[in-house]
Amino acid sequence: MKVPVHRTRIRVPGFRFAGVRCGLKESGKRDVALIASDVPATAAAAFTTNRVKAAPVRVGIEHAANGRLQAIVVNSGNANAYTGKQGLRVAREMCVLVGRELGIDPKLVLPSSTGRIAVQVPLERVRRGVADACRALSRDAFHTALDGMMSTDAFPKFAAETLIIGGCEVIVAGMAKGAGMIAPQMVVAPSAKLERHATLLSYILTDAAVSLPAVKKTLKVALEQSFNTIVVDGDTSTNDTTVLMANGVAGNRALTVSSNQFATFCGAATRVMTALARMVVKDGEGATKVVDIHVRRARSVREAERVADAIARSPLCKAAFFGGDPYAGRLVCAMGYSGARFDPQKIDIYLEDLPVVRRGVEVVDGNAKLASSLMQRAEIALTIDLRAGNAVAHRVCSDLTVDYVRFNSDYRT
Amino acid sequence: MKVPVHRTRIRVPGFRFAGVRCGLKESGKRDVALIASDVPATAAAAFTTNRVKAAPVRVGIEHAANGRLQAIVVNSGNANAYTGKQGLRVAREMCVLVGRELGIDPKLVLPSSTGRIAVQVPLERVRRGVADACRALSRDAFHTALDGMMSTDAFPKFAAETLIIGGCEVIVAGMAKGAGMIAPQMVVAPSAKLERHATLLSYILTDAAVSLPAVKKTLKVALEQSFNTIVVDGDTSTNDTTVLMANGVAGNRALTVSSNQFATFCGAATRVMTALARMVVKDGEGATKVVDIHVRRARSVREAERVADAIARSPLCKAAFFGGDPYAGRLVCAMGYSGARFDPQKIDIYLEDLPVVRRGVEVVDGNAKLASSLMQRAEIALTIDLRAGNAVAHRVCSDLTVDYVRFNSDYRT
Repeated sequence: MKVPVHRTRIRVPGFRFAGVRCGLKESGKRDVALIASDVPATAAAAFTTNRVKAAPVRVGIEHAANGRLQAIVVNSGNANAYTGKQGLRVAREMCVLVGRELGIDPKLVLPSSTGRIAVQVPLERVRRGVADACRALSRDAFHTALDGMMSTDAFPKFAAETLIIGGCEVIVAGMAKGAGMIAPQMVVAPSAKLERHATLLSYILTDAAVSLPAVKKTLKVALEQSFNTIVVDGDTSTNDTTVLMANGVAGNRALTVSSNQFATFCGAATRVMTALARMVVKDGEGATKVVDIHVRRARSVREAERVADAIARSPLCKAAFFGGDPYAGRLVCAMGYSGARFDPQKIDIYLEDLPVVRRGVEVVDGNAKLASSLMQRAEIALTIDLRAGNAVAHRVCSDLTVDYVRFNSDYRT
Repeated sequence: MKVPVHRTRIRVPGFRFAGVRCGLKESGKRDVALIASDVPATAAAAFTTNRVKAAPVRVGIEHAANGRLQAIVVNSGNANAYTGKQGLRVAREMCVLVGRELGIDPKLVLPSSTGRIAVQVPLERVRRGVADACRALSRDAFHTALDGMMSTDAFPKFAAETLIIGGCEVIVAGMAKGAGMIAPQMVVAPSAKLERHATLLSYILTDAAVSLPAVKKTLKVALEQSFNTIVVDGDTSTNDTTVLMANGVAGNRALTVSSNQFATFCGAATRVMTALARMVVKDGEGATKVVDIHVRRARSVREAERVADAIARSPLCKAAFFGGDPYAGRLVCAMGYSGARFDPQKIDIYLEDLPVVRRGVEVVDGNAKLASSLMQRAEIALTIDLRAGNAVAHRVCSDLTVDYVRFNSDYRT
């Protein structure tokens, strides 16, 4: 995989950014972020499948339905979730304010929130914050905006890649926030099929010109390989949102799904989102390890996902990852209750390239030292070969640590 | 609920017990247990639904199929799970040895194991242990046998109740072991429908005479209200087993499903098993709290169970229980991703009798102190009223603590 370019100063032509303080966070840190395009952008958004959808998610679903967005307004410090009609009024008001300040239709504004659930947002503070953000917009404030949307994040998450599309240099840049309540199961809206959903907010911006079907397809393909594969705690949030905006100021002929270079663009977006997703796992609350779980030769994709998910969510497996114990028993147990069909006596399990189970027999003993040292690494890859079919799945999870419990027994998300 | 009588010395007429050491545990503690009836007993057994079934579970399913058992042989220190054909040989050999020593058909013997998965059992040690146990059988050794099956348990779990059936005093006595890898989903064998499964071993013994259909029905009814409602970590084990044996030495006319006193017997067995199940949660690895989750007015039992299970398994909810934070946000989030259908703006949530959410609005603020002090208790009851239908469900879970993670990152189950 091509490693995305991590720039310390990201600029995306035609986009301006802001991050300001309005007093939603007790810490006094930045709590309002704004992203605005100079022109309306072709846009698609994906949202949590949690039945309890935050007010900004409900408003966002409406506004994204037109396939065009010009601004994204985010507050941290309060999720505006489970806040009833008053919450909806606040989310709409945020869009109206941005619209008024920037002179655009409020329907071109998508709102997002992250922070505590079931607490009303103090409207006056947010109003002031949003107005300040509109006035602070700057081409160089990508990182300030990102700062304004962080909650329990230990570090900012961003990635970017430049590519040539139709002779024009374009950039695909992404920012994300998220560390806890992470098990994203997002679907591109509108969709009848709601399947998966975390408090994960991510915005992918490009100056390339891309058709709406191509934007939607890119978001869908990239989501399935990035945010929808990660698990920190397994709690799927009420607020997860990912937006892809293509404002076209690069001047290329608009990319369509059938363009030769569509795969190039989709690949770049996927790499950016995958890089962001891994950062979220790495920054998982209390996490010390990133574990890749590859399942292959399952009877169906659903069954492959069930096996990978069972391991990625099992408290016992995750505690073993933290402990660095190369012990297959807990993996096999989780696989067994996953609901997938396989013959336990046929499976192989690898830790990196080292076989730890072969044809149903634990074989780690001869390489116990090597296995132990592999388990001490910050990144671990497990491969599970079920020998039951042809389907594959991939999940990326963090470990379950003493600090995760300390943090979450002491903090209101 | 009538509180079961906890006797310090339990005797069950017609049953003898033993607990011995054979070197399976590094600690040198007792690791083989034996329960033997003087006469063949009417018996039913329920086993884990994990696809990876331990060797003793596979042999136990065969042996329990006849509805008659005379002995139960248990080893701790090794789960004999994921041990292939050699594991099956060991499980069968344990039955053969008991059969030979006691002069009974090996098919009347049910084997159980608990301990590490994916490690071969040292056969010679187990042989010696089983032979020693057969010679050590005693009417007074109920508690010694229980000692022999404990693994990560901090305290022994037993309960008993006496009742009059057909003019005869009979006893229903139960013992259980289990603290981790607990999310029992057991079904009475034989059954085509395998749905739920923990390393939980429990043996319920009575001297009452009970017909086989009545034994099976009692086990099924009691399981659904006891072990199948509890969650420690959510990891459903490869070894869960519950056995109900009725040896009839009390001399009552055999109880049938249509007997007037069937409900009395079934109620006693259910209370004994429910008491044992709560002890398992209380002894959950690292647990400091027992949390009852009652869901009512769901659209279906399945949906009520989904809501209760989502909360009982959510790392964020469980960490909040540990922290003692009366915060509804995480509950509502878990309910939202549970898959159950309800209107978030209609639900009520109670902490004990105190409303914390009413019609979708958090109302704890006025009673924040009371709510906080209720959350500090060792036993907490949450009631969730979905106002969506008529179905109910109940789950009992432990909290997720720093000690849980310490223990499980440091120990091979």
